Amino acid sequence: MDVSSLDTPFATVDLDAVERNIARLQGYCNEHGLAFRPHIKTHKLPGIAHMQVEAGAVGITCQKLGEAEVMQAAGLRDILISFPLIGEGKAERLAALAREGELAVAADSAAVARGLSQALASAGAEAGFLVECDTGFARTGVQTPKEAAELAEFVDELPGLRFDGLMTYPTLPGTGPALRAVIGEINSRGLEVRTVSAGGTPTFFTNHEVPEITEVRAGTYIYGDRGCIGNGTVPLEDSALRVRVTVVSRPTADRGILDCGTKTLTSDAVETVGSGYGLIVEYPEANVYSLHEEHGHVDFSGCEQRPEVGEVVTVIPNHACACTNLHDQVAVHRGGGLVGVWPVAARGKIR
Amino acid sequence: MDVSSLDTPFATVDLDAVERNIARLQGYCNEHGLAFRPHIKTHKLPGIAHMQVEAGAVGITCQKLGEAEVMQAAGLRDILISFPLIGEGKAERLAALAREGELAVAADSAAVARGLSQALASAGAEAGFLVECDTGFARTGVQTPKEAAELAEFVDELPGLRFDGLMTYPTLPGTGPALRAVIGEINSRGLEVRTVSAGGTPTFFTNHEVPEITEVRAGTYIYGDRGCIGNGTVPLEDSALRVRVTVVSRPTADRGILDCGTKTLTSDAVETVGSGYGLIVEYPEANVYSLHEEHGHVDFSGCEQRPEVGEVVTVIPNHACACTNLHDQVAVHRGGGLVGVWPVAARGKIR
Repeated sequence: MDVSSLDTPFATVDLDAVERNIARLQGYCNEHGLAFRPHIKTHKLPGIAHMQVEAGAVGITCQKLGEAEVMQAAGLRDILISFPLIGEGKAERLAALAREGELAVAADSAAVARGLSQALASAGAEAGFLVECDTGFARTGVQTPKEAAELAEFVDELPGLRFDGLMTYPTLPGTGPALRAVIGEINSRGLEVRTVSAGGTPTFFTNHEVPEITEVRAGTYIYGDRGCIGNGTVPLEDSALRVRVTVVSRPTADRGILDCGTKTLTSDAVETVGSGYGLIVEYPEANVYSLHEEHGHVDFSGCEQRPEVGEVVTVIPNHACACTNLHDQVAVHRGGGLVGVWPVAARGKIR
Repeated sequence: MDVSSLDTPFATVDLDAVERNIARLQGYCNEHGLAFRPHIKTHKLPGIAHMQVEAGAVGITCQKLGEAEVMQAAGLRDILISFPLIGEGKAERLAALAREGELAVAADSAAVARGLSQALASAGAEAGFLVECDTGFARTGVQTPKEAAELAEFVDELPGLRFDGLMTYPTLPGTGPALRAVIGEINSRGLEVRTVSAGGTPTFFTNHEVPEITEVRAGTYIYGDRGCIGNGTVPLEDSALRVRVTVVSRPTADRGILDCGTKTLTSDAVETVGSGYGLIVEYPEANVYSLHEEHGHVDFSGCEQRPEVGEVVTVIPNHACACTNLHDQVAVHRGGGLVGVWPVAARGKIR
């Protein structure tokens, strides 16, 4: 059975391309003695998470507790949750996970650490704790070495939590100097920083330039979306996630409408690749200039050949992580031959 | 039990506000003798679809076949699918639905009509057909009265399909003149236009100014998102869909990070309300200036009071339809008292 027999729109995953992407990034990590902890938020598939671990990853990264629950239930044993967990309900769910497998969390405040410690200690469980440091991205993360060291000391005294080290995202030009200052401050207080976890696909191949980094995380590399192709981290032929869609209307000579909109591709724009909401593989000169929920608006004026109503085309989405979260299932294939229709098991896990 | 007992992020639906929104738009339709066929793509909930029909709607509109299947299975009997259906698989699914309930479709090409006709005729079923006309929106829709009339004649000859009339979206200043020209052309060929379906929430209350319109559709009005508040179609107090979220980080005096990003709110921007990805009800001066998948970035510099880590706040999303599609469940309430946690039954129905 071939993916072409499936109705549209259908998201497809090329398992050969996935394997090439795993081999490339794991190879880099092996070469530089870096632990690799891929982020499953891009694929949300236990099957691919196991492929990553079998290829050499030390464990996986999840953004949400609900993702970690799916992954642990599917046999993944070493999980970092990279998002601050707040509230009694989440703390108890973390404790339950930590009793069954290796768990670590990252956060930037004592409030988060305190809540998790109570639940973990009550459950007789332990989780690692990474102090999240803002090294230039201006999202989450402590702002100064002093704040980092104070949080490290605070965590080190708490039952149920084990101070393991630092986490930052992404690896930026300022990351090395910032990490060195934080590590110096923490060491001066007699604490050891065993793990320094950094990452992000766009700057992945620069991580070896910061010797303090011990572990790297990356998500989007696994599929290679239009953003990755644009920034050069994944070549076009290794873009593994593609959405098969149908031209459902050709109202004018230039305009075509596809049966994929924001509900299928996401409305995420990608600044690095300019305008447009996806790359049509068969019509690379076409511009997907606008999306509504179900409609993809295409300007075919730059194309010599133009599709008829009913033609199926293949779209590489702007942002794989957001795209995959919209699909209950993906069609996994090798060279077009269907391997299986896999449920996106960790899709929609917002809590 | 109160919605405040639920973990975050959690999408909540205020049933009192929903009822007010239904009453307001159904009241307008009753006053002007217009049939109302609300679009369920915003709520995707059979429970609310039944409320709309009980209040006087003639039926519902679905964008996708998968939505129509959910709705028919939940007892909705009169359904318009407003998106062009292409392919044998979809045609057979339409035929199965059309044998059990009243079904109509809209499209702008003979290719679509031909495919549907074959499957419907084979199944001994019939569906209504509306010729979609572009009256100024430049999405789908035939471009000229001649094209509309030719498609109407073509459909009128096909088994399994019944030419019912016209559909357009949205109702714009050019809609009246365009519809009159199309109806004139079709009438001149001896065909009757029984139904003229128009709509859209933003211009809903102008539909009576176009006497040709017999039926109106609207979706977003049911929840009233930041877009509706901005364009004045739904007052703030009737915005029924709100997402309870937690402040998970306060890395600087001005910046706060919420546990809601594009996976919870959507990355849809709303041009009419300026920048930002949502309105924080408790901090209306705050600016949700950026979203990542799980992180909402807020600038609280305009607020006198600012939240602590752990505080729960309420966000009105930019675009309700895209938001609700991200949630497996919504917490339905009256005045905060939980009515139930409803599965968003027609979520993710992209086919």
